[in-house]
Amino acid sequence: MTEEKIGRTELVVDPFHTDFAGRLNYGTLGKHLLNSAENHASERGFGMKMLNEANYTWVLSRLAIEMYEMPKVYDKFCIDTWIEDVYRLFCDRNFCIRGENGKVFGYARSIWAMINYDNREPIDLHEVHGQNMDRYICGEENCPVEKQGKVRRLSDDKLIRNLTIRYSDIDYNGHVNSIKYIEHICDLFPLDKYRHENVRRIEMAYMAESYIGDTLSFFVEEKEKDVYHIEVRKNVQENVSKGESVVRCRLVFE
Amino acid sequence: MTEEKIGRTELVVDPFHTDFAGRLNYGTLGKHLLNSAENHASERGFGMKMLNEANYTWVLSRLAIEMYEMPKVYDKFCIDTWIEDVYRLFCDRNFCIRGENGKVFGYARSIWAMINYDNREPIDLHEVHGQNMDRYICGEENCPVEKQGKVRRLSDDKLIRNLTIRYSDIDYNGHVNSIKYIEHICDLFPLDKYRHENVRRIEMAYMAESYIGDTLSFFVEEKEKDVYHIEVRKNVQENVSKGESVVRCRLVFE
Repeated sequence: MTEEKIGRTELVVDPFHTDFAGRLNYGTLGKHLLNSAENHASERGFGMKMLNEANYTWVLSRLAIEMYEMPKVYDKFCIDTWIEDVYRLFCDRNFCIRGENGKVFGYARSIWAMINYDNREPIDLHEVHGQNMDRYICGEENCPVEKQGKVRRLSDDKLIRNLTIRYSDIDYNGHVNSIKYIEHICDLFPLDKYRHENVRRIEMAYMAESYIGDTLSFFVEEKEKDVYHIEVRKNVQENVSKGESVVRCRLVFE
Repeated sequence: MTEEKIGRTELVVDPFHTDFAGRLNYGTLGKHLLNSAENHASERGFGMKMLNEANYTWVLSRLAIEMYEMPKVYDKFCIDTWIEDVYRLFCDRNFCIRGENGKVFGYARSIWAMINYDNREPIDLHEVHGQNMDRYICGEENCPVEKQGKVRRLSDDKLIRNLTIRYSDIDYNGHVNSIKYIEHICDLFPLDKYRHENVRRIEMAYMAESYIGDTLSFFVEEKEKDVYHIEVRKNVQENVSKGESVVRCRLVFE
């Protein structure tokens, strides 16, 4: 068990983890963030493995990633992660994505809840972990990117894609993987857009879980130039306006 | 530049790289295999980075993976890779996936061609690399799994899915990523099948490239119990039987 508040994961951009332009793709970056969070937690006694034994698991509630620049193929980079604060039902965890010589590629903010694996009910963090998580709260490290804003439900006519959930969408938690939604959202835009633009910022709000057998519907609206709001609803087949929001997202190109 | 014939990559099964049952997923394993191949090659002077500077690139022609058991979440494992032989237009590369204490999880065989990045024509390996690749040919290491067999064109009525190629399908080579086909193929089967069975062996023959704007059509036939032949054709819209085969695959469950 380490006393260090900040956990570091060293990485390199493998050539098969980039997009066509050699940029690390958001799907891979997202999984690296989640894995670095899990490594940080498990080295401090509150990782998923131990939780699973107690029938609890972490679920991601909010994730905002802002990249000033995306690491390119063969770039070395590292992810630093630390806990910003612990509340009764949520834990705020931040990330810094750094290149060689301390160059900052970007930051990420995340909010996590702990749930009971079976009934999916939230768990009181203070009750379960007492002071164990609190003592890792890190006040020294800065995360100078905005907290994420609110994305409202979009109007029904913004529907642009329906998708059936398949085997590879489902992760160890038994639901659609949080990062898979990001990949599906990035795939809503034509490749040509990525020739001249980068995804500068992506904000994800995870509102409900979806499972195998569900259908996802993607609604997209460009709110101002290159700022998109995206809503994902499940099972809208019978009545679009009754479909439940599972994810809301704000995506900023530049 | 190393003199070692075998290259080793040390890995761990991160919790966000597994399927719902905690097994390392084939997509992630496939990317690890390709990255370990690339690391091996670049440490010996014939990696993609150097090739790209000369306007050449490696493309995967055949890949067969046979897993006696799939590593599970949090398992440590390593991938050993070596060159079995070098021909004029192809290079045979093998892999062993090993766990702790030398336990063998499985093996993989692959065949690669080098092409000109612009006109996609094959390059004579002996002409370009002379003896540099030959001196890494490794006779000592064994790969005790079968070479892959031939999969014939399937009949038109076996079509079960059409799919539009999207941003995340395309890799740094500008075409649909070889491993993405594996993910799409695994997604053809219902999740329930994966509750009771594992993919024991997957053989991929990459016959043509596909690009953004192409549509992929998946044809599936169960040849004997739990042995599936899969064919992927592109752009069959006008005439199914005229669509070009881009991938043929044999998938064995157990």
